[in-house]
Amino acid sequence: MNQSRLERIVEQMRLAELDQIIITAPNSLYYLLDQMFHPGERMLALYINKDGKHAMIANALFPSAKYLDTDVFFYDDTEDPIEILKNLLIDGNFGVDKEWPSHFLVRLMKAVPGLQVEIGSVSVDTPRMMKDTDEIVKMKYASKVNDETMKKVVEALREKRYSEVELKKLIPSFFEEMGTNELSFSPSVCYGLNGAIPHHDSGNDMPKSGAILIDMGGRTDGYCSDMTRSFHYGEPSEEYKKVYDLVLKANLAGIAAVKPGIKISEVDDASRKVIADAGYGEYFTHRTGHGIGIEVHEFPDVSSVSDTVLEEGMTFTIEPGIYLEGKFGVRIEDVVLVTQNGCEILNSYSKELQVL
Amino acid sequence: MNQSRLERIVEQMRLAELDQIIITAPNSLYYLLDQMFHPGERMLALYINKDGKHAMIANALFPSAKYLDTDVFFYDDTEDPIEILKNLLIDGNFGVDKEWPSHFLVRLMKAVPGLQVEIGSVSVDTPRMMKDTDEIVKMKYASKVNDETMKKVVEALREKRYSEVELKKLIPSFFEEMGTNELSFSPSVCYGLNGAIPHHDSGNDMPKSGAILIDMGGRTDGYCSDMTRSFHYGEPSEEYKKVYDLVLKANLAGIAAVKPGIKISEVDDASRKVIADAGYGEYFTHRTGHGIGIEVHEFPDVSSVSDTVLEEGMTFTIEPGIYLEGKFGVRIEDVVLVTQNGCEILNSYSKELQVL
Repeated sequence: MNQSRLERIVEQMRLAELDQIIITAPNSLYYLLDQMFHPGERMLALYINKDGKHAMIANALFPSAKYLDTDVFFYDDTEDPIEILKNLLIDGNFGVDKEWPSHFLVRLMKAVPGLQVEIGSVSVDTPRMMKDTDEIVKMKYASKVNDETMKKVVEALREKRYSEVELKKLIPSFFEEMGTNELSFSPSVCYGLNGAIPHHDSGNDMPKSGAILIDMGGRTDGYCSDMTRSFHYGEPSEEYKKVYDLVLKANLAGIAAVKPGIKISEVDDASRKVIADAGYGEYFTHRTGHGIGIEVHEFPDVSSVSDTVLEEGMTFTIEPGIYLEGKFGVRIEDVVLVTQNGCEILNSYSKELQVL
Repeated sequence: MNQSRLERIVEQMRLAELDQIIITAPNSLYYLLDQMFHPGERMLALYINKDGKHAMIANALFPSAKYLDTDVFFYDDTEDPIEILKNLLIDGNFGVDKEWPSHFLVRLMKAVPGLQVEIGSVSVDTPRMMKDTDEIVKMKYASKVNDETMKKVVEALREKRYSEVELKKLIPSFFEEMGTNELSFSPSVCYGLNGAIPHHDSGNDMPKSGAILIDMGGRTDGYCSDMTRSFHYGEPSEEYKKVYDLVLKANLAGIAAVKPGIKISEVDDASRKVIADAGYGEYFTHRTGHGIGIEVHEFPDVSSVSDTVLEEGMTFTIEPGIYLEGKFGVRIEDVVLVTQNGCEILNSYSKELQVL
């Protein structure tokens, strides 16, 4: 159990007026326990109350839980873990993990009539936003691996012999060459018009003259990277060059806006304004970015409605894009770390327009 | 919208006295809509009430929802889908999808004080247990693909040149040769002592004299297969042969017990008794099986505490095992379909002990 992280969680519980919470999300458990559980459909919960007392409820199929430095209550498949949780509860409200499947919560509410239920995850998600020294080292290394992997992807693109789906399948092996065996997310490899389609799933399209969009990241030593680069097969049109330049300016404007003390919506505004002022506002169809760490999408949200105030140690993406249906899409994404006076960009792959 | 499946769901809602439900699990939506959504963290919900009225709530990032034959309420990332759901609700109780993340439910309960919340998924999970003609065709084909893939795995095992993790990585490509691009689950490839470790993750162990355990399945045309076979590198010990024979007898006893009208716990009992009578009861550490269909683990549970009565069309696994720590593990798993008088085994790969 990471004591300093536990203390930060209990402090957040106090601020949120939560008497007790459970943590069930494997990634949040990893943050505290440095051990990744994959409980699947079985309940696995770390209970914490406002006095800092904690206990684990785990299925007997996960015997490694017995080595944790907390009381562990094991149950088997014929027993009800909700009964164990009920017996741990103290008087007061109860903060549930935001991802806990509802059937557990409904059963708990029936077992404890009148229980006042709140969303408790904020107490964990808030500390997780501000990376500590150990986490920053890992975040930097994860992005370094992503830079090197992007180089391999661009070499493969230059060979012009892989379909979208073939290149997409090569990406995990490129990461593995760097010792990274897990992806942050399923990568996007889009050729031509496909880059303008949100959530396009790579298909059998082969390289041809036109736009390229690559969005990828790996999870290295528990922490995620995430980077998008846009390239072009053959000489790009004037419109493509104009849009690329605009997206790059929006990316840089977002980065320039980052500093402790401002609202995160100001980062979104700064990036979005560049694109809107040039008349392309309606084609920037998503938020500017998202927090990243143990998970590729975590707090803070980097959008126009995010009131979160930036603090040193936060890591998030800045990824403006312009998507012209039937033509092409351009997105340029970096991961930044908030520093004392501004921010540091964790990945370093070139953002100059490359013609392949 | 599959009308006959919708009617079965509304009938189950009536039996469970549910006035309205939401379906949010992508696999249950697939069952009704024949379209697989991957909404990630964004809310996607099909609302159904007791009169059979239905409506979809979807984020604008999933525009394909507009082609569904139901009313679709789109929202964007700055809007609250809970407000849309609140406006759809009629008087009466509300059945929540069992997998719905709790933060949605907590917000709904705050928006609609006094809402009586139940677990609604039973109305969908019950019809899903009894496969219809279209589903049975797909289940049979998925298991046929798994049989062919097991042949390829055994060929690779005979080459004795792949570590556990290398063979594990080959399995997706074997499935792809059969046109199956998705796995039911991450396969288990265990050599030697590793087969006795529950949830062992394949490592760098190379083939050597000793036990082999392969557990795998593919998802073909939306439906899952799942099969375990145990093999042996080199001449097995007398103890291994005895245990293999026992597990095979337990597998066959479970299969022989299956027929409509009995409680599913009787299948578990029949299989477990063979192993317990031989004095190995404590080494059969899990339930006998699980329902399978669109998901690799779905209802019914095949355990000693499962009161579900078998009905024609149910598909589930029978997978007894014996795990001797420090020695070896043996498991033999088949998928069965309940028929009018007994059952049909959907996979057909040999269960005779093969020495490789």
